[in-house]
Amino acid sequence: MRIAVIGESVATKENYKNAEEVGALLSEKGITLICGGLSGVMEAASKGAKSKGGQTIGILPSLDFKDANKYIDIPIVTGIGHARNFLVVRNAQAIIAIGGWHGTLTEIGYALDAELPVIGLNTWQLEQKTHPPEKKGIYYVQTPKEAVDLAIKLAK
Amino acid sequence: MRIAVIGESVATKENYKNAEEVGALLSEKGITLICGGLSGVMEAASKGAKSKGGQTIGILPSLDFKDANKYIDIPIVTGIGHARNFLVVRNAQAIIAIGGWHGTLTEIGYALDAELPVIGLNTWQLEQKTHPPEKKGIYYVQTPKEAVDLAIKLAK
Amino acid sequence: MRIAVIGESVATKENYKNAEEVGALLSEKGITLICGGLSGVMEAASKGAKSKGGQTIGILPSLDFKDANKYIDIPIVTGIGHARNFLVVRNAQAIIAIGGWHGTLTEIGYALDAELPVIGLNTWQLEQKTHPPEKKGIYYVQTPKEAVDLAIKLAK
Amino acid sequence: MRIAVIGESVATKENYKNAEEVGALLSEKGITLICGGLSGVMEAASKGAKSKGGQTIGILPSLDFKDANKYIDIPIVTGIGHARNFLVVRNAQAIIAIGGWHGTLTEIGYALDAELPVIGLNTWQLEQKTHPPEKKGIYYVQTPKEAVDLAIKLAK
Repeated sequence: MRIAVIGESVATKENYKNAEEVGALLSEKGITLICGGLSGVMEAASKGAKSKGGQTIGILPSLDFKDANKYIDIPIVTGIGHARNFLVVRNAQAIIAIGGWHGTLTEIGYALDAELPVIGLNTWQLEQKTHPPEKKGIYYVQTPKEAVDLAIKLAK
Repeated sequence: MRIAVIGESVATKENYKNAEEVGALLSEKGITLICGGLSGVMEAASKGAKSKGGQTIGILPSLDFKDANKYIDIPIVTGIGHARNFLVVRNAQAIIAIGGWHGTLTEIGYALDAELPVIGLNTWQLEQKTHPPEKKGIYYVQTPKEAVDLAIKLAK
Repeated sequence: MRIAVIGESVATKENYKNAEEVGALLSEKGITLICGGLSGVMEAASKGAKSKGGQTIGILPSLDFKDANKYIDIPIVTGIGHARNFLVVRNAQAIIAIGGWHGTLTEIGYALDAELPVIGLNTWQLEQKTHPPEKKGIYYVQTPKEAVDLAIKLAK
Repeated sequence: MRIAVIGESVATKENYKNAEEVGALLSEKGITLICGGLSGVMEAASKGAKSKGGQTIGILPSLDFKDANKYIDIPIVTGIGHARNFLVVRNAQAIIAIGGWHGTLTEIGYALDAELPVIGLNTWQLEQKTHPPEKKGIYYVQTPKEAVDLAIKLAK
């Protein structure tokens, strides 16, 4: 199983700590971590995953393997810039969003559009004005453990 | 000048009417309409633009020119699916979001990330938890005229 | 009708002159020119097209409109780097290759794979070892006029 | 180290056998196989790699993990169609081309453009008319062992 962790590239202390714990918990369950491969929340989740011996895949915007943080086992370069956000979420079966700026918002949108479950920990609050009836929103949780448990339960 | 209109592909009556009026007003100002080229809000904006003789560019997810609505002058096929949402916003100098589902959310995210102005008419309400200090949010307005005037004023 | 002209970004004199003439001839027939929007053969074809008042679309690898040569009416930015070569050929109904380096080779491959006609003027010679039976190769010609006439005849 | 094997999706017997042997030899050297993840030469190389316990990454055109052949450890879905050919080659340090149709030609073009070494085994013969001086062509070899040895020697 693969779960993506998404979030800001310059992380607050709280988001960094939570992402690291999410990475560790995913790894303990034998789940491969998918992320954007860069710094901040992406790095923290990768670091957590490696602390428990898990596998980490980083899908990078650039063509330079060196852009990957040092906890990425398998960097995938794309050269398609932020269009790669689409690839990050579609390579996972569930998404955990921790904090996050506007790039994270694009990933949340892509995930919800594809009906992939999105678990939110201190992330964007969204209110839609014109709903297509069948789509779920973000599942908000309070702790890394809740995030991982729910992501595993809902993963497609 | 180019302004993008984004929104849902199956439009509510109100959103369709507003998008059509936005298209017409942009066209009266000599502005080229950028959109995703498909149905709903995209079609309405294109129809409005053509009613005033304006130019319309539709950036399509597929490789099939026939997927463009009939008001598109210049269809651009991409074959990169929803990753093309990135191209829609980056080909404009300002964005007007009318209604919209999760695809629209990705476009709002891409636009705000690039610091392109986003004018919202009955669209997503967003509340971010961890702010990068320098980025603006959506400018909400109530009428097509306000949307077009503000988009022109803020266009990059 | 849309026809793409592809070729090297630093053109030989002969290729530049031929591309300019191809652009002019396409424009005289009312055909829209598609190209990669940059320098060399792309610029020459655009210049020729504009000398006869034709329409020119340049599909750029970057996100910067200023990267387009000055004869491009409609720059389309992509931000997906050389992956945009795929978009250049798929936005045309026939391809004219003039000279060309390795980027041009990718465009020839994409066009032949999609069974779009490729007309070659002083371009790559290809010999395939394992043929899928149904695919055509490059149609080689000697002059700009032959290139344009054949491209129009074979356009899909 | 990562080396890509590229070639046709419906393989001749000879190309299938050679690709399988190339995959096995790469795997014996501890090299990760990159490929397009589908059938034919891609499948054969993956099968050979797994026969020796190697790692295989398949970068797919679609969004469906099930499109990967059964010897792929790490499928990466893209949803960008044949534009993914660019990603296949840029994720490797050297390329081995075995047979191949027009998709393979695009990959050869992308690799040579990026100055990645391309080793050819019964693949396209290319003759360029207008050379940029600094670029190498394909290195042709006769056996899987020569292909693997040279790819390792030249890998960037």
